Amino acid sequence: MIQPSSNSIATSLPLYNFAGGVGLLPPKVISEAQQAILEVPGTGISALVINHRSQLCRDILDETEKNIRTLLNVPDNYRILFLQGGASLQFSMIPMNLWANKSQPVDYIVSGYWSTKAIKEAEIEGKNVNIIWNGKAQKFVRVPSRHEYKIDPDAAYVHYCSNETVEGLQFAEPLETGDVPLVCDMSSDFLAKPIDIGKYGLVYAHAQKNIGAAGVTVVIIRDDLLECIPDNIPTVLDYRPHVEMKSIYNTPPVFAIYVVLLVTRWLLNDIGSLANMAGQSQRKAALLYNLIDQSEGFYRGHAQVDSRSLINVVFNLATPDLESRFIETARQLGIIGLEGHRSLGGIRASLYNSMPVEGAQYLQNFMMEFQEKFKNYQ
Amino acid sequence: MIQPSSNSIATSLPLYNFAGGVGLLPPKVISEAQQAILEVPGTGISALVINHRSQLCRDILDETEKNIRTLLNVPDNYRILFLQGGASLQFSMIPMNLWANKSQPVDYIVSGYWSTKAIKEAEIEGKNVNIIWNGKAQKFVRVPSRHEYKIDPDAAYVHYCSNETVEGLQFAEPLETGDVPLVCDMSSDFLAKPIDIGKYGLVYAHAQKNIGAAGVTVVIIRDDLLECIPDNIPTVLDYRPHVEMKSIYNTPPVFAIYVVLLVTRWLLNDIGSLANMAGQSQRKAALLYNLIDQSEGFYRGHAQVDSRSLINVVFNLATPDLESRFIETARQLGIIGLEGHRSLGGIRASLYNSMPVEGAQYLQNFMMEFQEKFKNYQ
Repeated sequence: MIQPSSNSIATSLPLYNFAGGVGLLPPKVISEAQQAILEVPGTGISALVINHRSQLCRDILDETEKNIRTLLNVPDNYRILFLQGGASLQFSMIPMNLWANKSQPVDYIVSGYWSTKAIKEAEIEGKNVNIIWNGKAQKFVRVPSRHEYKIDPDAAYVHYCSNETVEGLQFAEPLETGDVPLVCDMSSDFLAKPIDIGKYGLVYAHAQKNIGAAGVTVVIIRDDLLECIPDNIPTVLDYRPHVEMKSIYNTPPVFAIYVVLLVTRWLLNDIGSLANMAGQSQRKAALLYNLIDQSEGFYRGHAQVDSRSLINVVFNLATPDLESRFIETARQLGIIGLEGHRSLGGIRASLYNSMPVEGAQYLQNFMMEFQEKFKNYQ
Repeated sequence: MIQPSSNSIATSLPLYNFAGGVGLLPPKVISEAQQAILEVPGTGISALVINHRSQLCRDILDETEKNIRTLLNVPDNYRILFLQGGASLQFSMIPMNLWANKSQPVDYIVSGYWSTKAIKEAEIEGKNVNIIWNGKAQKFVRVPSRHEYKIDPDAAYVHYCSNETVEGLQFAEPLETGDVPLVCDMSSDFLAKPIDIGKYGLVYAHAQKNIGAAGVTVVIIRDDLLECIPDNIPTVLDYRPHVEMKSIYNTPPVFAIYVVLLVTRWLLNDIGSLANMAGQSQRKAALLYNLIDQSEGFYRGHAQVDSRSLINVVFNLATPDLESRFIETARQLGIIGLEGHRSLGGIRASLYNSMPVEGAQYLQNFMMEFQEKFKNYQ
């Protein structure tokens, strides 16, 4: 069944898509992207046919990079790359590039579905993979506190996922790793709040949740890590040629990057700062979590309170049947994408950057009404 | 300098972009892509925010695949994949996947810039790489005839590039490889003419020349080759999960695939068949090559006549100074992108599918006038 989203013109109903896989885009970005298909303003060129060796492509890449630097206050000793292949390819590129000496260990935190995927790919690249904390036995209901994991000082790097979209878990702060480079899959909370990039060796994020459309992945890497990359890996999977050629080693996905440019302009000019974005994020999450907490068990949050994600609110109702009824009733009111991840079931409401506060408010209202109607359901 | 293309609205001048890296798109496709940013017709959803697990995404992938099957008459024992990373990533994925037993050789034809790039990546994956024909000593002015290369019957596969965009060389027919699987980089002449897919083990093509915008790569692979893939390669670089998940193992570049869908619809509905497309291609190329041949040495084709590309017409004038004057005079008349590849210099006019016959006619007229004006130039 084809489902409408809130980036919709086909109906005058309010429509809010809370799906976890792919986020929305601000209406302004949709409109500007549409214009750019005909002509990137002032250039006479469609954004779909920009030659990657042209100055226009260079200008687009440079402004997108500059905006990310401004938003995140990225220090000068970090490079910003626009690559293809999503987080899935980074799961492999990271051990290929940053783990030259396979007698060194690499340290991984396993906090949910996505960090588990990352570790599987590391294990293909080498044997010495340490799991320094694993939440699986507890069914991934929390992230570790600082005293629960111990970094091997000889580790080539430490990897974690800052926000687990499937289970709705989020690290409030970066791991403390001392001198060991910290690597973070930030796909689902990148540009959702200010972060101290200086604490990381490498940060990566695919675009389709918070910063654009599927097809481009942002990598931010500290200069000194480039010096340790081994020489025998495939050229296109080696960060260095992408750094040297400033993301045009091979043809980049120019249009997808252009959409990221539009989103970063929206963040700078319309939202103002990542602190403002984080404020919206907190307000949206609070609307749902407060309701869950006051529902007397009608809604049952998956995550422990101190590990709750501000991005993905995951919860259950009393039975799968009631959950199906919840999803279907919501759909009739224009609230879609609430199905939990296929690996977990239940309900998931995803609150990526482009979900307006009114969307979360609308969902909260529906949840109150649904509870009132079904509170005596057995 | 930002240059207009023929996908331009900024001027009423005729504008034709003959650049080699990225092709144009039909005006109809530009218009339909623009519409889809607002709403994929009849769905209420922007093509930029389609969830990859939705039926709409499945419908887009399935129709695009069906159209390619129809256009190329692809046999049932071949899978069609939509991947990321361009031809550059295929240069590595092919030896990773199809060369499980490294004591077997792999055979490569070296016919120009791009096949040279491919072989460098194969040599990273294993030592036993045979160059079965190399045109470098002759400065890549021709492709081999059938009796000039000898396939090792034990080779895991044979690789070649059907059209070398930099030097303007094209194989008129696929290599004859007997039982050894034939692998072809078809990035620059994919869907430009009918081919017998049954002669190939694997064909790949990035989208940005003939079939769409940068960001997606089409791979067509014969079923039996999937059975020989080793188990220790990164999951996202293994063809099998992409086959099993029908191109949604990870989030595909949905919008880029949607543009390919629009181009395949244009080929089916407006052009009619690849035979018709090939007819246009031959007419465009003949306009330029006939003029070159009749120019009494004013224009000097790079390729030997029987190896000429119908896609990229590469030639020189008497001096680099005259070439600069040619490029600049053309630019003033709205003819752009004529600079040769940075590795070769000279002039290159690229005639990808979306370049109309009138564009080649317009360029031919300019070339005749330029020759008349400068024929006595020393």
